[in-house]
Amino acid sequence: MKSYAIGMDIGGTNSVFGIVDREGQVVCCDSIKTQEYTLIDDYIEAVSTRVEALIEKVGGKKNIEGFGIGAPNGNYYKGTIELAPNLPWKGVVIPLCDMFEKRLGIRTRLTNDANAAALGEMTYGVAKGVKNFIMITLGTGVGSGIVVDGKMLYGSTGFAGELGHVTVNRTPQARLCGCGRRGCLETYCSATGIARTARERVIAMAEPSLLRELDVMKITSKDIYDAAVKGDAMAISIFRETGTILGRALADMVVFSSPEMIVLFGGLAKAGDYILKYAEEAMDENLLPIFKGTVKLVLSGLKDADAAVLGASALGWKE
Amino acid sequence: MKSYAIGMDIGGTNSVFGIVDREGQVVCCDSIKTQEYTLIDDYIEAVSTRVEALIEKVGGKKNIEGFGIGAPNGNYYKGTIELAPNLPWKGVVIPLCDMFEKRLGIRTRLTNDANAAALGEMTYGVAKGVKNFIMITLGTGVGSGIVVDGKMLYGSTGFAGELGHVTVNRTPQARLCGCGRRGCLETYCSATGIARTARERVIAMAEPSLLRELDVMKITSKDIYDAAVKGDAMAISIFRETGTILGRALADMVVFSSPEMIVLFGGLAKAGDYILKYAEEAMDENLLPIFKGTVKLVLSGLKDADAAVLGASALGWKE
Repeated sequence: MKSYAIGMDIGGTNSVFGIVDREGQVVCCDSIKTQEYTLIDDYIEAVSTRVEALIEKVGGKKNIEGFGIGAPNGNYYKGTIELAPNLPWKGVVIPLCDMFEKRLGIRTRLTNDANAAALGEMTYGVAKGVKNFIMITLGTGVGSGIVVDGKMLYGSTGFAGELGHVTVNRTPQARLCGCGRRGCLETYCSATGIARTARERVIAMAEPSLLRELDVMKITSKDIYDAAVKGDAMAISIFRETGTILGRALADMVVFSSPEMIVLFGGLAKAGDYILKYAEEAMDENLLPIFKGTVKLVLSGLKDADAAVLGASALGWKE
Repeated sequence: MKSYAIGMDIGGTNSVFGIVDREGQVVCCDSIKTQEYTLIDDYIEAVSTRVEALIEKVGGKKNIEGFGIGAPNGNYYKGTIELAPNLPWKGVVIPLCDMFEKRLGIRTRLTNDANAAALGEMTYGVAKGVKNFIMITLGTGVGSGIVVDGKMLYGSTGFAGELGHVTVNRTPQARLCGCGRRGCLETYCSATGIARTARERVIAMAEPSLLRELDVMKITSKDIYDAAVKGDAMAISIFRETGTILGRALADMVVFSSPEMIVLFGGLAKAGDYILKYAEEAMDENLLPIFKGTVKLVLSGLKDADAAVLGASALGWKE
């Protein structure tokens, strides 16, 4: 009898769920549009119906060890989602684990999406066997999962590891963050942050660039990457600026937990060397002497389409 | 039969050691001048001779569970001191635990001084029973010890928790730190950092202050405290500035490990409310919404003279 775990990633746009085997293969998956379900009960029902269909494909519930969920502001201790700004069930504490356990009769665990990504990396990816590492997800926002001594760091609240909100600019001109504070890492080093940098550069500077040919308000991180690949000097310099901010912030994170590895993941990490090289240079240059040469910066090896589901499914396995 | 642990704090000036009972009483202690022993063998011998005299007072070696040492750049995993800038045995990796175990025949453990302070706080102080907290030592430098899930965070190298070196100022004007980098927390919020702030203010500004009556190059954190107690506006404003920088940095630390408590300790912490109040205000104001109301900022309750020895002794007990 084979055993499987279910993984689900709840995003602001899509909720993707799949069935994963012990080797980290997503054997089948499905998704629904998160925003279409403004009532949480409808959402639970819609997901559960489709998950049950997947479960049938692998021989029924007896083969399922558990259900793991990654969600913005997911609280591992309580199994709840709290104050998640991009989800339709705003402003409430939602007991998601309890609701799914009751509906599906399957042991359910939940954590935030970046923690889920870190668990996935530890269970199936480049961080397999690595006891101390930090996962940084560079997507629409910047998230993180911190692993200490082989265990996820949850802290006293269950919300530890919100490294997208370390302050990288304390000047009054620092960018305003969605969290209400200023100068957070994610205002500069997320996919949205780098796009904003590009827009500001196009508007403020006269330098020639392929980016000028685009609708300035619609420039994306992908556009900057495409321009950089073509050798566009401004695009490359935007990656240098962004990578440098990221690398300096990473150097500061190292003084906290002294990881042996930092894994970059998500939309912006797909720019590969364009972000990695500059981040690595800035990190190495800014490391406290005692940590020089002790930290590797690497890109996630997980297939992008599967990573979120894989990560969440890692929570589904019994320990 | 009573059992005891030996604790030693190795400072740049003094090495203080004492015998501690299970209740956290320092039953006897002694010290030597660290700088008088430029050869490590002479240092080990001098400490050991005096420690043996203390051991006799409590009934001999059979009553001793172990020897715990707190030292700058002490490495818990290896039992070594590495690259410690203020110790006379510079530039070498010193296998201190092995040397003491060989000489004294007593199980010896070592960690850095701030970690030792955190262990002391957890074993005998305000953090007794607290599973997730951060200890910040505000002395000549700024050190830290991070406790996660009831365990000291050592990280992959054994050097985790160097929070005195998080960057709080990334402008080109940021203060140069002893570590070679710029803008580290300890350049602003240590006893030396606040004294520097006072000197800069006295020189640059015309405002009246009791601090002007002192030799400007010799102003200490104690002088600033004394002036503040007398209602000196400049001194109070220097505490506000320093406390605000500290509080903002603390808010950023919270996103990492989500502690339920942050404990301040050391010379500058003795300024009590003058530093605590402003640090607390700035921390609370700058906390990510999800962490609001989840962290207490408190002053260490350990007696200053005993704290370093107590902290180190906590490593002496068998687990």
